[in-house]
Amino acid sequence: MRLTRYFLPVLKENPAEAQIVSHRLMLRAGMIKQSSAGIYSWLPMGFKVLKKIETIVHDEQMRAGHIPMLMPTIQSADLWKESGRYDDYGKEMLRISDRHGRDMLYGPTNEELVTDIFRSHVNSYKDLPLTLYHIQWKFRDEVRPRFGVMRGREFLMKDGYNFDLTKEDALHAYNRHLVSYLRSYERMGLQAIPMRADGGPIGGDYTHEFLVLADTGESEVFYDSDVTDLSFGDREIDYDSVEQCQGVLEEFTTKYARTDETHDEALFNEVPQERRRTARGIEVGQIFYFGTKYSEALGAKVQNQDGKPTPVHMGSHGIGVSRLLGAIIEASHDDKGIIWPEGVTPFHCGIVNLKQGDDEADAACNQLYAALTAAGLEPLYDDRKERAGGKFATMDLIGLPWRITVGPRGLKNGVVELTSRRTGESVEMSPEEAVKKVVEIYAPHMTSRGF
Amino acid sequence: MRLTRYFLPVLKENPAEAQIVSHRLMLRAGMIKQSSAGIYSWLPMGFKVLKKIETIVHDEQMRAGHIPMLMPTIQSADLWKESGRYDDYGKEMLRISDRHGRDMLYGPTNEELVTDIFRSHVNSYKDLPLTLYHIQWKFRDEVRPRFGVMRGREFLMKDGYNFDLTKEDALHAYNRHLVSYLRSYERMGLQAIPMRADGGPIGGDYTHEFLVLADTGESEVFYDSDVTDLSFGDREIDYDSVEQCQGVLEEFTTKYARTDETHDEALFNEVPQERRRTARGIEVGQIFYFGTKYSEALGAKVQNQDGKPTPVHMGSHGIGVSRLLGAIIEASHDDKGIIWPEGVTPFHCGIVNLKQGDDEADAACNQLYAALTAAGLEPLYDDRKERAGGKFATMDLIGLPWRITVGPRGLKNGVVELTSRRTGESVEMSPEEAVKKVVEIYAPHMTSRGF
Repeated sequence: MRLTRYFLPVLKENPAEAQIVSHRLMLRAGMIKQSSAGIYSWLPMGFKVLKKIETIVHDEQMRAGHIPMLMPTIQSADLWKESGRYDDYGKEMLRISDRHGRDMLYGPTNEELVTDIFRSHVNSYKDLPLTLYHIQWKFRDEVRPRFGVMRGREFLMKDGYNFDLTKEDALHAYNRHLVSYLRSYERMGLQAIPMRADGGPIGGDYTHEFLVLADTGESEVFYDSDVTDLSFGDREIDYDSVEQCQGVLEEFTTKYARTDETHDEALFNEVPQERRRTARGIEVGQIFYFGTKYSEALGAKVQNQDGKPTPVHMGSHGIGVSRLLGAIIEASHDDKGIIWPEGVTPFHCGIVNLKQGDDEADAACNQLYAALTAAGLEPLYDDRKERAGGKFATMDLIGLPWRITVGPRGLKNGVVELTSRRTGESVEMSPEEAVKKVVEIYAPHMTSRGF
Repeated sequence: MRLTRYFLPVLKENPAEAQIVSHRLMLRAGMIKQSSAGIYSWLPMGFKVLKKIETIVHDEQMRAGHIPMLMPTIQSADLWKESGRYDDYGKEMLRISDRHGRDMLYGPTNEELVTDIFRSHVNSYKDLPLTLYHIQWKFRDEVRPRFGVMRGREFLMKDGYNFDLTKEDALHAYNRHLVSYLRSYERMGLQAIPMRADGGPIGGDYTHEFLVLADTGESEVFYDSDVTDLSFGDREIDYDSVEQCQGVLEEFTTKYARTDETHDEALFNEVPQERRRTARGIEVGQIFYFGTKYSEALGAKVQNQDGKPTPVHMGSHGIGVSRLLGAIIEASHDDKGIIWPEGVTPFHCGIVNLKQGDDEADAACNQLYAALTAAGLEPLYDDRKERAGGKFATMDLIGLPWRITVGPRGLKNGVVELTSRRTGESVEMSPEEAVKKVVEIYAPHMTSRGF
């Protein structure tokens, strides 16, 4: 993309309404615009990152054998009355009356709807296991929406639902979700630590939240510092293997890591003192096994091997897709702006032309642009007639992890400059080497399978 | 995908509620499930086709230089009061009151919101031309939703908006949209004919609807049969070239082609009698130049070259993304089921194992599956323990354009059977040849660029 043809309305001033850095930077970098309280338009660059995150989530869910579908945003109230949650949900649910006066609502979650689909079509244990998921906009009518996309009213979420014959099968589905979530967050350049969460009224140990450590996090967290050394890495996993998935669960959830909701001081004190950590965290996902709560309420039964109708064991598993943009920025920025991890950056590489209009500099930039594009990468070429300082400031603000700077002086020596946004380090090299280097850097990230 | 791991709830019986063939086939093929009147869940196979169509639309819009973004579904009523459309819109608009009693609505379209974004960020003619678009769910509270996804209440639409300094520039944007729409529909295997449409209260000649000929179409159309010989094909186009885009417009809109709304009997009679055709058509898109209507109402002005504030010339351009699934099926099916065009098929190739459990047949199917997958294709392998007749019926119903049939008898002679869904023709060949053939068939369709 050439910047003169793009729509990137960066702001020079810090917007007054933004209380936290991710909100401020998303506004300043022209990624979002509030349209009403807690409701945002995703401007082109914000939308691009949203799409990258969505693609990673789809990729990893499909890899785990979970099946994508899409439920609508507007639901009839009937199913919610059947499950008993219509009254429970209170004012956070956006209630709507259609032209015929029927009670509708903007779905805040989808247990009822997906269970209805299941009970309409599945009758036999032979059709299990089954995990359906979707990535769809939700609405929660928060009293005080704030922190930009971190706590909006209209937000994009992946929610998945497993249907299994037995508790054991459902716990394997739980573990599959844990593994696929670890992989997803790592591809986004995030460390999200699974922490024992509060089961709420349902109780039980079978829920974990995934938290990204950040000073602005809404939860206080307590953990053994050893958990931050864990990483899934590029190991192979067979999602059908109960043992392998269980092994990952144990590896990632045995050491102490809890939010304030489930924190147990006595247990925490058993962790050697030098490894005890208190910090703040942003919740970016949660997995949950809840047994037969909804399948009993809504009559979602299958015939088991003996021909007896039996309610299925279910769980629901969510990733906060739009919220992740905020979380990533909270975890990865500096005074100058955002620092995108390679896995989610809106453009792979910036190209800064120090002397727009100079024939040689223009030609070199065009060649770099063509070479990167031909390699399947997407560069952002700042081809404005701006002074270099302004171009650098924009690039630093929007946070592309790599930048190639092209100027007449370097070109005389046959070199351009490749700069890392994270370290600030610049290295001179030939344009061909720069392209080769950038292509190498992104090779591990070009794995998306798409639809 | 292996069918035993998928969720494809096909129906044996014809659903009573479906009045038209696409609705019937989408229900029978397990693509959608109605959740309430005019609101559907997209079951996995329906969702997959929806994604394919969405991807083609994104691809072709980006190719034309139009910039993707995303506006929210829920809008504040304020902007609509400002434009004067809040009262005009009547009961089709889903009106909502949030917890604070503020007037909100589920967007049926986005002229107001996009114009607000524009006026907040763009001040100078130097930032033009600009075309922003998004693909987002809309809601229109139809009195009598029907025909499945063809006339639903919650529907997915691409809507794009151009902002230009002059009428000439805006007409070039109009022409770019016409070209990109022709390309999009052709990639979906559709012939959609641009027809002069009714400008409504705004008047003027600058609106065309794109219609797919089908017996179940809602509009009566009149055309010169020569228009059905036109095709965009794989010609190169420079979207920056006013001449080239104007040339395409002239080529595709000069011959007589109108809906009943704009039909002119006298003009039609000038077409040689043997080329005069009357038929029915399904509207799958519309392009519109409306000048300064919204930019004046909402104060969207830029400074022109003389420093004078001047309202921008706009147009809006829509493609009915979810409706296209219905239109494609209406245009491409037979008694046995759907016949997907290669560009949008949910899976590229079916694999039918005639003797599930037979070691050789199973191994051959697994090899075919692996080879097609390695080539970047997505096969659907019917690995159920079903009789051959049932497997063929399912494949015919769901309409994958190509099927490879594998049985012990053929394998003894080293062959499998490659069958075209469209012609029903089967040819025996080695498994390797079958893979090679299928890969060749899809080569022109593997061009998606993604995000």
